[in-house]
Amino acid sequence: MATSYLQRPFGISVQSHGNCRVFTQKGELSSFSYQPAYEFPRIIMCPSATCNLKSKGCVGRIRGLSNNSDFFWEEISTPILDMVENPMNMKNLSPKELSQLANEIRAELSLMVSKGQKTLRASLSVVELTVAIHYVFHAPMDKILWDKGDQTYAHKLLTGRRSLMGTLKQQNGLSGYTSRFESEFDPFGAAHGCNSISAGLGLAVARDIKGKRDRVVSVISNETTTAGQVYEAMSNAGYLDSNLMVILNDSRHSLHPKPDEDSRTPINALSSTWSKLQSSKTFRKLREAAKGLTKRIGKGMYEWAAKVDEYARGMLGPAGSTLFEELGLYYIGPVDGHNIQDLICVLQDVASLDSMGPVLIHVLTNENIEEAKEMNGTMEIVGRGSGPAAPLLPSIGTRTYSDYLMEALSIEVQKDMDIVAVHAGMRMEPAIKLFQENFPDRFFDIGMAEQHAVTFSAGLACGGLKPFCIIPSAFLQRAYDQIVHDVDQQKVPVRFAITNAGLVGADGPVCSGPFDITFMSCLPNMIVMAPSDEFELARMVVTAAQIDDRPVCFRYPSGSVVPLNNSMDCTVPIEIGKGKVLVEGKDVALLGYGAMIQNCLSAQSLLSKLGLEVTVADARFCKPLDIGLLRELCGNHGYLITVEEGSIGGFGSHVAQFIALDGKLDGRVKWRPIVLPDSYIEHASPTEQLTRAGLTGHHIAATVLSLLGRTREALLLMC
Amino acid sequence: MATSYLQRPFGISVQSHGNCRVFTQKGELSSFSYQPAYEFPRIIMCPSATCNLKSKGCVGRIRGLSNNSDFFWEEISTPILDMVENPMNMKNLSPKELSQLANEIRAELSLMVSKGQKTLRASLSVVELTVAIHYVFHAPMDKILWDKGDQTYAHKLLTGRRSLMGTLKQQNGLSGYTSRFESEFDPFGAAHGCNSISAGLGLAVARDIKGKRDRVVSVISNETTTAGQVYEAMSNAGYLDSNLMVILNDSRHSLHPKPDEDSRTPINALSSTWSKLQSSKTFRKLREAAKGLTKRIGKGMYEWAAKVDEYARGMLGPAGSTLFEELGLYYIGPVDGHNIQDLICVLQDVASLDSMGPVLIHVLTNENIEEAKEMNGTMEIVGRGSGPAAPLLPSIGTRTYSDYLMEALSIEVQKDMDIVAVHAGMRMEPAIKLFQENFPDRFFDIGMAEQHAVTFSAGLACGGLKPFCIIPSAFLQRAYDQIVHDVDQQKVPVRFAITNAGLVGADGPVCSGPFDITFMSCLPNMIVMAPSDEFELARMVVTAAQIDDRPVCFRYPSGSVVPLNNSMDCTVPIEIGKGKVLVEGKDVALLGYGAMIQNCLSAQSLLSKLGLEVTVADARFCKPLDIGLLRELCGNHGYLITVEEGSIGGFGSHVAQFIALDGKLDGRVKWRPIVLPDSYIEHASPTEQLTRAGLTGHHIAATVLSLLGRTREALLLMC
Repeated sequence: MATSYLQRPFGISVQSHGNCRVFTQKGELSSFSYQPAYEFPRIIMCPSATCNLKSKGCVGRIRGLSNNSDFFWEEISTPILDMVENPMNMKNLSPKELSQLANEIRAELSLMVSKGQKTLRASLSVVELTVAIHYVFHAPMDKILWDKGDQTYAHKLLTGRRSLMGTLKQQNGLSGYTSRFESEFDPFGAAHGCNSISAGLGLAVARDIKGKRDRVVSVISNETTTAGQVYEAMSNAGYLDSNLMVILNDSRHSLHPKPDEDSRTPINALSSTWSKLQSSKTFRKLREAAKGLTKRIGKGMYEWAAKVDEYARGMLGPAGSTLFEELGLYYIGPVDGHNIQDLICVLQDVASLDSMGPVLIHVLTNENIEEAKEMNGTMEIVGRGSGPAAPLLPSIGTRTYSDYLMEALSIEVQKDMDIVAVHAGMRMEPAIKLFQENFPDRFFDIGMAEQHAVTFSAGLACGGLKPFCIIPSAFLQRAYDQIVHDVDQQKVPVRFAITNAGLVGADGPVCSGPFDITFMSCLPNMIVMAPSDEFELARMVVTAAQIDDRPVCFRYPSGSVVPLNNSMDCTVPIEIGKGKVLVEGKDVALLGYGAMIQNCLSAQSLLSKLGLEVTVADARFCKPLDIGLLRELCGNHGYLITVEEGSIGGFGSHVAQFIALDGKLDGRVKWRPIVLPDSYIEHASPTEQLTRAGLTGHHIAATVLSLLGRTREALLLMC
Repeated sequence: MATSYLQRPFGISVQSHGNCRVFTQKGELSSFSYQPAYEFPRIIMCPSATCNLKSKGCVGRIRGLSNNSDFFWEEISTPILDMVENPMNMKNLSPKELSQLANEIRAELSLMVSKGQKTLRASLSVVELTVAIHYVFHAPMDKILWDKGDQTYAHKLLTGRRSLMGTLKQQNGLSGYTSRFESEFDPFGAAHGCNSISAGLGLAVARDIKGKRDRVVSVISNETTTAGQVYEAMSNAGYLDSNLMVILNDSRHSLHPKPDEDSRTPINALSSTWSKLQSSKTFRKLREAAKGLTKRIGKGMYEWAAKVDEYARGMLGPAGSTLFEELGLYYIGPVDGHNIQDLICVLQDVASLDSMGPVLIHVLTNENIEEAKEMNGTMEIVGRGSGPAAPLLPSIGTRTYSDYLMEALSIEVQKDMDIVAVHAGMRMEPAIKLFQENFPDRFFDIGMAEQHAVTFSAGLACGGLKPFCIIPSAFLQRAYDQIVHDVDQQKVPVRFAITNAGLVGADGPVCSGPFDITFMSCLPNMIVMAPSDEFELARMVVTAAQIDDRPVCFRYPSGSVVPLNNSMDCTVPIEIGKGKVLVEGKDVALLGYGAMIQNCLSAQSLLSKLGLEVTVADARFCKPLDIGLLRELCGNHGYLITVEEGSIGGFGSHVAQFIALDGKLDGRVKWRPIVLPDSYIEHASPTEQLTRAGLTGHHIAATVLSLLGRTREALLLMC
């Protein structure tokens, strides 16, 4: 590790290019330890079958988007960042240059934010931390793990993916999260949060068993520390005592700030000095010596000494510090997360310890970057992207299913004050936030603690309330056991509103929800339904509110809804287990589930132009199935096609099992299931994702034509 | 609440009957507040359709088993317990009588333990606690929640279920856990552990919203505090600040006692005095006053004062106390869990506070009851049931699948030292324990922290090891999101050994694992398989060890295995996606999955006696399916019956989807799925459960006969 820095005046433009997009090797100054001979870390770009970047020759860094004319790096000057193709190029930078590098990264990220990449905003708070980590540690040999995708963009910039940042979350572009498939600088994927300590501990233990000596650094966010897995992992780390560095990135956006207790600890001289003292070798050694001495004296004394140590430090440390100590992690902090020199000092001290056990470094950062950082003149664009907050409800043209859900729920809660809403997850959609503001005593924001949210809802229901538990499909997975054991087995009437079901566009496979139909509809007591449009959604809210003897769930997709012109009464509940025929036909029956009904209707429209009379039915319920409707469809049609935006094992499987047992599959009707393919569909636009999944109206129509032997027409349709 | 006690000499036999089984009203002394006019709490016994106790007129307490000749209460004298039909009868007991009551309960439970009801043992540690809780609180109006079923037997004894204790876990008998369906004294079900704070908080918040004033008491066990949900719940309880009493039953069976750090705090005079002081109104009021004062002075001072309070108490309290305070619960303790008077004093003090917020009372108990309690002469049978520990591996005749798993894994780990085992769950089977002893550095017992266990395994795999993650099916549900996100999406080669799959006999529906085939086989990258016998299991271990590019899982049922005489080589891996035909037939094909193959073979044997030639095939893989085998079976048979001990959406659904898309269902073959019924099957013997599920060889054979129109023979077979 470099111990003497090259002192160069702050802000010097070592390499100022008009267009900094393309990395150049022209400017290696002798003072920089740029080593072209260094074996470049392997960058793996989108290895999945659906990704064609590789085939276009874009493997490796840069140049991938040289023809991407709307990219914007030319607007700012980033001389030091231009030098850093990978973290190895940072090693000989001076402290000032490191600060400058951080400023450049912040400027570049801010520009992206201002150009619409809002998700990058969270990364602004960890720019200095990212720089410090990559300066002190030797990735990819050392393993740097993150637990929130949107904090990893500075990390992506520094690890060979800068030129591809414009492709973020776009088809064939960079993932919005860390990904093992994307870069070897990403030793583990981060998207659902709260997994970085568990995975880091696994890597650390594997390293110990294999006799290696690399370092493992797990960054966790204060937002994800509400999740139970973080405690499970810390407690186990404390027990296993493997060398692991956990960095708590505390952006002090506490989910539950109490009005009368501001837990923000000022970043002052004391805390800075104290963290340094704690991490210094001398202090650690003294502590170990004290431990050894008291161990010899006797257990009671040893315990007492440990306590004195712990509490003395607790008195000086911020609230929360002893919690980590109780769990077995040595606490160091708080450290100013925007002071690179402090960060490097602490990280180097901890990293230099041979046998440290698990250490938690508490780093305070600030997402509101204007407040945290005085930028110099050239960097004044920083923070420009942070305009006024979006209006609470989007305009009519871009309304989402969640808007309609919360609108319907608002009407219900005014009719029946036993209705309450429980929300779990990291982000809250505007409509849900509005509901919270309008009904603060009927709304519980649990945050990232889905397991608790579900059992808590069950408790509310047992106490006589009518809870609606609103959780995205992907995060509902985290509470599956609670759904099974605390809700379904006990037949407790919890109403699950499953948001972001199916494919989720730019958020990609990690946040998609393809499995909920499958894992919910196998539960014996659960009523499982899905609305085909916003009016059906409103009616399902009314229906769910009235079901008070068993649990019920309904799912809807993310994204905006094109409003229908419909004057139907949305306050009428739906009869349980009752679907409906939307279009009467005779050749083929399309039985859709949920939002896929719209695609069935467009397929029907395409086919009717080709002279085919296709029936379209809205199943509404996966459980209980509309047996009458199924028998009718099987009786009157040669083909029955089930269509859903979900995995195998869900709606189609339930239909097949029923009609098989009913004898309807014994030569009467030919059944074909259309489900999501058996693969994870990479991030892309929603339409593109549906195309890849074979779930567009065109695909459904082509399937019908193929079934009827009209292969040529099917092919024409897909051209 | 009674404030003056009737002082009666300890141990007086108020009502000593030769046979205490039948409750009698003869002996009401005026000193007892037995109130026949009191509205008796409703006892709901097994309301499920399969339970016939109700129809036999056994609703309510007692008399249910008067003809149960092998019951044993006549062996001990339990005069006070005989008086207590429900907790209301305890209210006027003197402290000495309460102690006597606890002794009688312990004697009765111990006798049951000695007669083979081993699971009751854990309840011995909470006898005094249970008595104190029911003395101080007014169940069922006040809500008492438990988080571990096996600690609730004293609670069951005191809440009208004493006469039915002999039916525990038996068909139509009492559940082994608390159950909302069994008694209104059970406001929430406990079986998977770690849910009682979440559910209790829900009940408390519902109470507040409804304007009621009942008290909610959630008992948690130190064994379940490794689970993340407990932290999620405590953190949320701290935030919501609803009145909730959490009792930590710390039996000091720490899962991970460090050899050099015994965290047991002696139950001494100081701790007893201290807990009483903490819970006293004066102390609480002083504390509130101090808070109010410092709030006015200023934030900094307030924080400092709060810290001084917290740490001063932390210095006196045991290790762990500040953890709860950090999470927002007011910590009181430790309290001697075997001193009824102390317990009552603390509980009454806390209960009398109008606005207490969430309080955690730390109660130290001891499962080794001889050590904890000096019993008097009449109670000397206590602890008799605790014989020597069972041998590490059961004799050959009663070996389980887990024995074979760990045997195979032991062989593998000796061949390849990269193999490690990760175990999650509360109890460890003897074979797994033996493995741990033999390979301590290749085994990780994570305890009740399944989420972490799965991601930790993924980390181990990313670090180059080959982890086998051993988790019961029911508890694997708790880590579903981690399986999806941290393992399957990242294609990390974790090998899941899913134990206790399907029905689990006496442990009933709450510990059954019917859903794993469904929720695992919808995952794109997962290889899903199941062995049909112990040799196949051994081969699947070998196979899984060799799969290093994707995750794999295999499931097996609980219970003993009747060993086969087989000299096959178990070290040969199975070709991925390759099933096999076991018996060649022609009329009907039975395609079994997992252990159900044995039942298919017995059906085949029954049917061959009736002249039917039935094919039996072992699918082995649910994913990838053996396409060749499926096409062959469909081509050569008129009927294809899939058989699995799992819910809808699993193996049968995968077969149906494939053969439908392959055109094989279009009139060629008639498919019938046999899966677990769409209901939870109550606890009973494994055979009885399989009978109820329609999965015995007889049922399968009868299904075949019915399909072929031989209904009469089918009926005869089932008689």
